[in-house]
Amino acid sequence: MPLPTPLRGVVPPVITPLTPAGEVDTASVRRLTEHLIDAGVHGLFLLGSSGEAAYLTDAQRLTALETAVDTAAGRVPVLAGVIDTARVLDRAADAVRAGAQALVATAPFYTRTHPVEIADHFRRVRAAAGLPLFAYDIPAAVHTKLPRAVVLDLAADGTLAGLKDSSGDEGSLRRLLVELRRSTPDFSVLTGSELTVDCALLAGADGVVPGLGNVDAEGYVRLYEAARAGNWAAAKAEQDRLAALFALTEEGDPALMGPSSAALGAFKAAARLLGLIDCAATAAPQVPLDEAAVARIGDRLAEAGLL
Amino acid sequence: MPLPTPLRGVVPPVITPLTPAGEVDTASVRRLTEHLIDAGVHGLFLLGSSGEAAYLTDAQRLTALETAVDTAAGRVPVLAGVIDTARVLDRAADAVRAGAQALVATAPFYTRTHPVEIADHFRRVRAAAGLPLFAYDIPAAVHTKLPRAVVLDLAADGTLAGLKDSSGDEGSLRRLLVELRRSTPDFSVLTGSELTVDCALLAGADGVVPGLGNVDAEGYVRLYEAARAGNWAAAKAEQDRLAALFALTEEGDPALMGPSSAALGAFKAAARLLGLIDCAATAAPQVPLDEAAVARIGDRLAEAGLL
Amino acid sequence: MPLPTPLRGVVPPVITPLTPAGEVDTASVRRLTEHLIDAGVHGLFLLGSSGEAAYLTDAQRLTALETAVDTAAGRVPVLAGVIDTARVLDRAADAVRAGAQALVATAPFYTRTHPVEIADHFRRVRAAAGLPLFAYDIPAAVHTKLPRAVVLDLAADGTLAGLKDSSGDEGSLRRLLVELRRSTPDFSVLTGSELTVDCALLAGADGVVPGLGNVDAEGYVRLYEAARAGNWAAAKAEQDRLAALFALTEEGDPALMGPSSAALGAFKAAARLLGLIDCAATAAPQVPLDEAAVARIGDRLAEAGLL
Amino acid sequence: MPLPTPLRGVVPPVITPLTPAGEVDTASVRRLTEHLIDAGVHGLFLLGSSGEAAYLTDAQRLTALETAVDTAAGRVPVLAGVIDTARVLDRAADAVRAGAQALVATAPFYTRTHPVEIADHFRRVRAAAGLPLFAYDIPAAVHTKLPRAVVLDLAADGTLAGLKDSSGDEGSLRRLLVELRRSTPDFSVLTGSELTVDCALLAGADGVVPGLGNVDAEGYVRLYEAARAGNWAAAKAEQDRLAALFALTEEGDPALMGPSSAALGAFKAAARLLGLIDCAATAAPQVPLDEAAVARIGDRLAEAGLL
Repeated sequence: MPLPTPLRGVVPPVITPLTPAGEVDTASVRRLTEHLIDAGVHGLFLLGSSGEAAYLTDAQRLTALETAVDTAAGRVPVLAGVIDTARVLDRAADAVRAGAQALVATAPFYTRTHPVEIADHFRRVRAAAGLPLFAYDIPAAVHTKLPRAVVLDLAADGTLAGLKDSSGDEGSLRRLLVELRRSTPDFSVLTGSELTVDCALLAGADGVVPGLGNVDAEGYVRLYEAARAGNWAAAKAEQDRLAALFALTEEGDPALMGPSSAALGAFKAAARLLGLIDCAATAAPQVPLDEAAVARIGDRLAEAGLL
Repeated sequence: MPLPTPLRGVVPPVITPLTPAGEVDTASVRRLTEHLIDAGVHGLFLLGSSGEAAYLTDAQRLTALETAVDTAAGRVPVLAGVIDTARVLDRAADAVRAGAQALVATAPFYTRTHPVEIADHFRRVRAAAGLPLFAYDIPAAVHTKLPRAVVLDLAADGTLAGLKDSSGDEGSLRRLLVELRRSTPDFSVLTGSELTVDCALLAGADGVVPGLGNVDAEGYVRLYEAARAGNWAAAKAEQDRLAALFALTEEGDPALMGPSSAALGAFKAAARLLGLIDCAATAAPQVPLDEAAVARIGDRLAEAGLL
Repeated sequence: MPLPTPLRGVVPPVITPLTPAGEVDTASVRRLTEHLIDAGVHGLFLLGSSGEAAYLTDAQRLTALETAVDTAAGRVPVLAGVIDTARVLDRAADAVRAGAQALVATAPFYTRTHPVEIADHFRRVRAAAGLPLFAYDIPAAVHTKLPRAVVLDLAADGTLAGLKDSSGDEGSLRRLLVELRRSTPDFSVLTGSELTVDCALLAGADGVVPGLGNVDAEGYVRLYEAARAGNWAAAKAEQDRLAALFALTEEGDPALMGPSSAALGAFKAAARLLGLIDCAATAAPQVPLDEAAVARIGDRLAEAGLL
Repeated sequence: MPLPTPLRGVVPPVITPLTPAGEVDTASVRRLTEHLIDAGVHGLFLLGSSGEAAYLTDAQRLTALETAVDTAAGRVPVLAGVIDTARVLDRAADAVRAGAQALVATAPFYTRTHPVEIADHFRRVRAAAGLPLFAYDIPAAVHTKLPRAVVLDLAADGTLAGLKDSSGDEGSLRRLLVELRRSTPDFSVLTGSELTVDCALLAGADGVVPGLGNVDAEGYVRLYEAARAGNWAAAKAEQDRLAALFALTEEGDPALMGPSSAALGAFKAAARLLGLIDCAATAAPQVPLDEAAVARIGDRLAEAGLL
């Protein structure tokens, strides 16, 4: 299927279920994919930060992506994260072979790069892969904020089809949206800030890539639909509910594990408790949540009426 | 006048007009204060970052504050910035003497402090001054983000009457708002993020402290009123217009001056072009905008129909 | 006394003893000052970060400075910290009145400034005060690193008499030293990095401003003298001993207090245990060390043969 | 050859020569390797930051490493960078196959990890590869500083054979050295701070990994030998000369390229001017130095008597 222009709606960054031995659990990938499509999501984003891409080998990445593409079977588009620096072209080739409908790439990381080099990086991916390309702005991971001018240039010359904004800089995003709507109205802007989706949609974003959507996809779909209908009070109430639910990402003991492991572990633990995946293991060397934390996550799901 | 509980609406962080010799221009303070009250603002915030408090002596701070309090004459409440570390208690005493209705204090800066020390800092200001106290969360200046737990504790025990959030962390603010609305509904949350005010109001904030409100107070009042009326499309359109106008803060040459000086200089240059103040000088050692930049600022005001 | 050119040797950043009620304990200031001069230090730096300047009122700063100047009575030069942004000129005037031989100023803080503005800040202090001026490079506090080009310019035009480098960027300092030694040989470079003083002296620095010098001034004087004599093995051994002793700054419980309070509290607790001051209180709102931590500090002093 | 314990001396982080088409130029790898061994270096570090590892594909990494190992032919040990997160085990297996004598791994990057996870990462690499492992502390690239306690634990249990410290935190390194010398005297500490090598050796480091060693390996060997002989004045003079030469890394135009590209480009341009490699191309998407910058680099080499 061709990618809708612009891509709109709820596009969860799909977690990558693993077996207890640490391999990709393809049966769980299929079950989770079906669930998300049933819930009404408008696309799937594989191999992002929530997909633990940084912790997966190339073969594991490919397995997860192929399984999701096969399961989606064209019902919704699949966006493939190709998060790498030099090897981004190899990952993009893998994604093309796996049948993804679009690619999502970050700025180079590990190295420090100039805006000219960042723009060239995206142009090389676009030229090599021949698929619509989304820029993934995630300074918490790559330690560079995509400059507004770079995004505008790459939107104008067709290098980028869209932006996944996980920068948390809503003021900069607003200025970008105002300019993009004048210049390139078909450019797709998806926010990764899952706690302020009503706001992003009010500001003109096209959709959202919510990690918490692995746990409550229906909630994000309702939120999106309320916003599209102009029912902002309903969108706000749904977002407030989801913001409260997000507390499940903080159940890990900060003395024993980091906030990323705690959040990813919580999404996976919740998905297992909800029956969406078989095993909540996160990839090594991440510290797993202990049983007490998982029990508290269960309590939060129950409070939210999800369990 | 007592401070309304919660304080709601548009509360501009008033710029401090200076004479060409660098002293506080009290006539311009009066004219600007009258203009803002005429425009319908709901309060005035003196001696904040937009007020160049860090660049003013104690005597200059007091002069600016006294003049604004005298001019406001109880028509709208005046919030006084007491931005300091050890000397915050002296500044708070000055603000009480000057007749302010509330105080606004940051976390300690220059030093690195623990959350327990930050909480104690606010408790000491509150105890000493006897006026309602707002915490000013501005990590760009003090290099500490106020932890959500500290704000909740200080709201619950009555230390804080409200929060001015200039952290730019809208996700954290959303989670805070959800919790505050359950626990302390009279607590006032004002956003300092002037580019996403419609979003903050949708999320449940009570009002806004917009630096750009020195240039277009009427616009922010219209935006606030549209949001209060539930007319989110109108609020969004007004915010988009103001976000475009904000480009006037980027007319300074980045090779010659920093972004803070460029933004403060632009607010003052615009206020002078609009006849609100007599002289656009910023406090030393800030680099002034050159004539070409001021001309471009004039063009932007004209495009916006303000000039 | 005029300031030696260049100033060389050990210049401790003197802690500010307080009474249990939080006022400056002038008797302890006198006793500590005498002790440091007896130990052979080459100057005293009052009102720096170790002096808790950020936590003192203007009156307290002045009392501490006047007492030290009076006690030193010209035997060693007294450098006065004038750490402030707008009010730096007022503090410099205070320091002149108190009889300091030199001033030490940071870049502006709280605000974000351009290198041109930082240079202008130092030029204004130098012009107003008429005393030799040291730039204090402390990015951990002011969140700007002094650019090498700014220091070189201000050294060349006589604005600065020296630099107190607490940046921790030894590579940049080395390049600066190589350039300064060619252009302005009388410029004084003092390192604030108390754990690598032998290295800084080998690299060509003139001296050191060691916070730990409040606890073991004799050690730093021995280290300095060994280095001056070209006995690098002895200097290295002394530095290793002092680096091990520095562990006393980490006895505070990180769950209860920050690293700055723990380090300052440790210097004061050690000085009290050594009989140099009467009370180990740190200024509010800093959390005090608990009794167990003070006991461990005593053990470390005993191990080091100081107690 | 087995790795000497501890590894001592000058171990340049070898640049990766590329052809104009962007492939690894194996003839130049051989010529450069011979030159470095002739200059007296004590080991070679392939595929580090100076080796542009982040910009090379897996196949390119392997080609560069195999060529260097084959050329070195056991005359000096070859350390192989295995800089990756999930795929570090694959890269380690490649390095074992290529015949490297030791591995060099960073903490995980892109993701945010807890110290427990960082320690586990190193333990997994050590267990899988069976070669001596160096931890590479480079917060500028991975945005985590290796905690001192983690290094001490991993030294004590034999996971790590050594540390390559490019953190720039000389105070922390000093405290680590003091503790390591007591507990694990065979542990090898190599500094990556090429501007303060005399200082690091005085402080007890075993050697240095200098990027500038690609340009002036003889200089670093002389510096190392002077230090080993206790001739600190000679070591200091050599370091001062090299610190001045380091200015060649700043000839790129900061408006057009970043500091990393400028420094890597300068090392390669200098190596080409010195006849050590055939082509100065850096890997895409880095901006190349322009002709004027290369000419200035040539002037600096001539001033230093190298050309």
